[in-house]
Amino acid sequence: MKNLLVAQSGGPTAAINATLAGIIERAFDSDEIDRIYGADFGIQGVLQQRFIDLTEAIPAQVRDEVGDIENYETLESGVYRLLARLSTTPAAALGSCRYKLKDPAEDSSEFERLIEIFRAHEIGYFIYIGGNDSMDTVCKLSDFIRARGITDIQVVGAPKTIDNDLYGIDHCPGFGSAAKYIAASLAELERELVVYDTPYVIITEVMGRNAGWLTAAAALAKDRNSRVPYLIYLTEVPFDLTAFIEDVRAELKENRCVMVAVSEGIRDRAGRMICEYSSLNENAGRSGYGGTGLDAFGHKITSGAARVLEHAVQKNIGCKVRAIELNLLQRCAGHILSETDIRESQELGRRAVSLALEGENGCMSSLRRVSGPEDAYAVEYYAADIHEIANREKTVPREWINSEGNGVTEDCLHYLQPLVKGELSCEFKDGVPYYAVLRRR
Amino acid sequence: MKNLLVAQSGGPTAAINATLAGIIERAFDSDEIDRIYGADFGIQGVLQQRFIDLTEAIPAQVRDEVGDIENYETLESGVYRLLARLSTTPAAALGSCRYKLKDPAEDSSEFERLIEIFRAHEIGYFIYIGGNDSMDTVCKLSDFIRARGITDIQVVGAPKTIDNDLYGIDHCPGFGSAAKYIAASLAELERELVVYDTPYVIITEVMGRNAGWLTAAAALAKDRNSRVPYLIYLTEVPFDLTAFIEDVRAELKENRCVMVAVSEGIRDRAGRMICEYSSLNENAGRSGYGGTGLDAFGHKITSGAARVLEHAVQKNIGCKVRAIELNLLQRCAGHILSETDIRESQELGRRAVSLALEGENGCMSSLRRVSGPEDAYAVEYYAADIHEIANREKTVPREWINSEGNGVTEDCLHYLQPLVKGELSCEFKDGVPYYAVLRRR
Repeated sequence: MKNLLVAQSGGPTAAINATLAGIIERAFDSDEIDRIYGADFGIQGVLQQRFIDLTEAIPAQVRDEVGDIENYETLESGVYRLLARLSTTPAAALGSCRYKLKDPAEDSSEFERLIEIFRAHEIGYFIYIGGNDSMDTVCKLSDFIRARGITDIQVVGAPKTIDNDLYGIDHCPGFGSAAKYIAASLAELERELVVYDTPYVIITEVMGRNAGWLTAAAALAKDRNSRVPYLIYLTEVPFDLTAFIEDVRAELKENRCVMVAVSEGIRDRAGRMICEYSSLNENAGRSGYGGTGLDAFGHKITSGAARVLEHAVQKNIGCKVRAIELNLLQRCAGHILSETDIRESQELGRRAVSLALEGENGCMSSLRRVSGPEDAYAVEYYAADIHEIANREKTVPREWINSEGNGVTEDCLHYLQPLVKGELSCEFKDGVPYYAVLRRR
Repeated sequence: MKNLLVAQSGGPTAAINATLAGIIERAFDSDEIDRIYGADFGIQGVLQQRFIDLTEAIPAQVRDEVGDIENYETLESGVYRLLARLSTTPAAALGSCRYKLKDPAEDSSEFERLIEIFRAHEIGYFIYIGGNDSMDTVCKLSDFIRARGITDIQVVGAPKTIDNDLYGIDHCPGFGSAAKYIAASLAELERELVVYDTPYVIITEVMGRNAGWLTAAAALAKDRNSRVPYLIYLTEVPFDLTAFIEDVRAELKENRCVMVAVSEGIRDRAGRMICEYSSLNENAGRSGYGGTGLDAFGHKITSGAARVLEHAVQKNIGCKVRAIELNLLQRCAGHILSETDIRESQELGRRAVSLALEGENGCMSSLRRVSGPEDAYAVEYYAADIHEIANREKTVPREWINSEGNGVTEDCLHYLQPLVKGELSCEFKDGVPYYAVLRRR
């Protein structure tokens, strides 16, 4: 019997703990796995040997919560309940890191150290949950292990990223829940938008530096009963401020209100980020939209595209306008989860363990869509080759964006719609989310 | 038989349509009411006679949605279903306005006009849903009617405001749902906060220019399983930037992360708004925190206190810090409602109609808490005198804020806790909120 080690990496999502819960559940059920270790703070925690023995910690936590449990079945049901709570807990219960291992061809010391640590703790299965950078870790580590002729350590990736930019998978765990939060928030802001009898433009800024998937999800919000137009600008298409103002102006001729969604990463044809336009300061005697990209505090701006557009609408059209940054909440809203997303995320976790048990090394637990646009949505699970995935970013295909570059096509909507379906919410206690916190030693 | 007119006013909330639904439901059930008119865009719509006949529009909308209905019971159940959907739809389905009637002692023309309009449409009952300003309208109009010796027109107010700043009621409809959204969002951001192994401060900015009730609700978020400290600054206590930095520094000595919540309206001892400090720009050679209160675009800033504090933490402490404005979403999140809030809001609507039918003029449908801190939460409904309510703002009592001015007391928590209890969500269709849109002619 060997031990299993799991760690989480990269930016928080609302679904990464669902994958963790799937991994723990599958590992608990397996006769081939002895201990389940969780590493604190990703691969950095592995290198520091900061492990929690979940095989002990989870039952202990259940015992603490419900008092002494004599009955095995009650303990087991308590464990499943804690795992269900974990599945709807956002962020990363084990903690995360943003750490890329060095290229082993240049410096293999970290890889040697990882093998030593795995040996010391009798770890035969390592599951790493994360996005592009984490799959790079899985790729390098599994290649290193293979090159050393080691066959009794299996390294498997489990995907997550709200950005939906991973290759080798139809869509990414965490994306559906973030997309649902964005669509719900815009549907709600649309109710705000129409409330007064005055022209009004709301400009929402959605996460996505290089991939516009989340911004595309804004199109799901559009109320089927109302006629509020949506203008949606993805980072995949060069952004033209003049064309944007004309788009808004044209919509305002026919409608009282306009809803706008932009990717935080929108850039102009010259590659300059729109958020960097914000140094425009007419008081300083500058003209045009050029500037230094510094905010009022003199800091380099990394978000703020919506604020720039707010100003441009104010200046050029003069109607009421409000910029709203959806900020961190879009990736951690455990109170509004896509059931599809959470169920798939759990299953991808379970499958990752199965793949490791089957002796796979250097793959990512993945899914492909097997339904056409007219069929009931269905996926099948498989092992994707990690070399196809690491260090690449999948963006929204140009043909899924309309020719004007201010909306998405029906094909894009068909792709997105099933991913936000089903409502799942976190556990509540006294009216407030009650999240799983895995106890440290 | 007389007709009933209802209108909505002031800023959107997640519960104002629940009150509207209660009013419509009670009026539909009454044999003493003929037609139910809704005015578009508040008292301005009344003055412009922009009415929807809800007695016809609502059944027509149900018929449209489900096809021809022969059976009366099916239509009735369809109407109740639409009203249930309306109850969980945010903003204001009839539209709203921010319009204060002139003092009738100076200019009574609007009041004369309102009486004419009421007579023309045989309106005997006028229910106005709103906050402070709307209760001012109810107050002036009912006094005017009484002074004229008119006895067959009843004017009744129904409360709403997320700010919870109305006198004459224990707590305001809309507040509980906004408080729940804020508590849930902070609970989620707390999961974000602890995810990396580095010191981190998140500073959330909550609505409230003069009343800190919503900011106090941040205290409900604190996870019972985690040890993340919360620092909460309400607008009721003068804000001291130096003390704030010391508070954060002290917490960071003991803890890796700190969660901060501030009211948008926090002011210093001199009465200057903290958001106006943002013109601090060291590049311009200024020192201290003085400045012009202009943003990078040269606009007067009306929010942004959290950004100012973000900068102050960066400069004085130097750790990772992020400002998050909860923005408009905190008042329109129909996907996460307090069941207590929505049920009470509906009942206050029903009671408003009952009060009008009983001949009350110049009152607000209200509730008082009849339970002590140790008892199960209970309220009773009554008619509050409108003169006690209009044009005043109820703030958080100083004794409910701790002596350091950076947190709230147990008494405050006891007051807040029941108000966010129970989970109620909007209707969903294809994974996205499906809101009630009342059809215009």
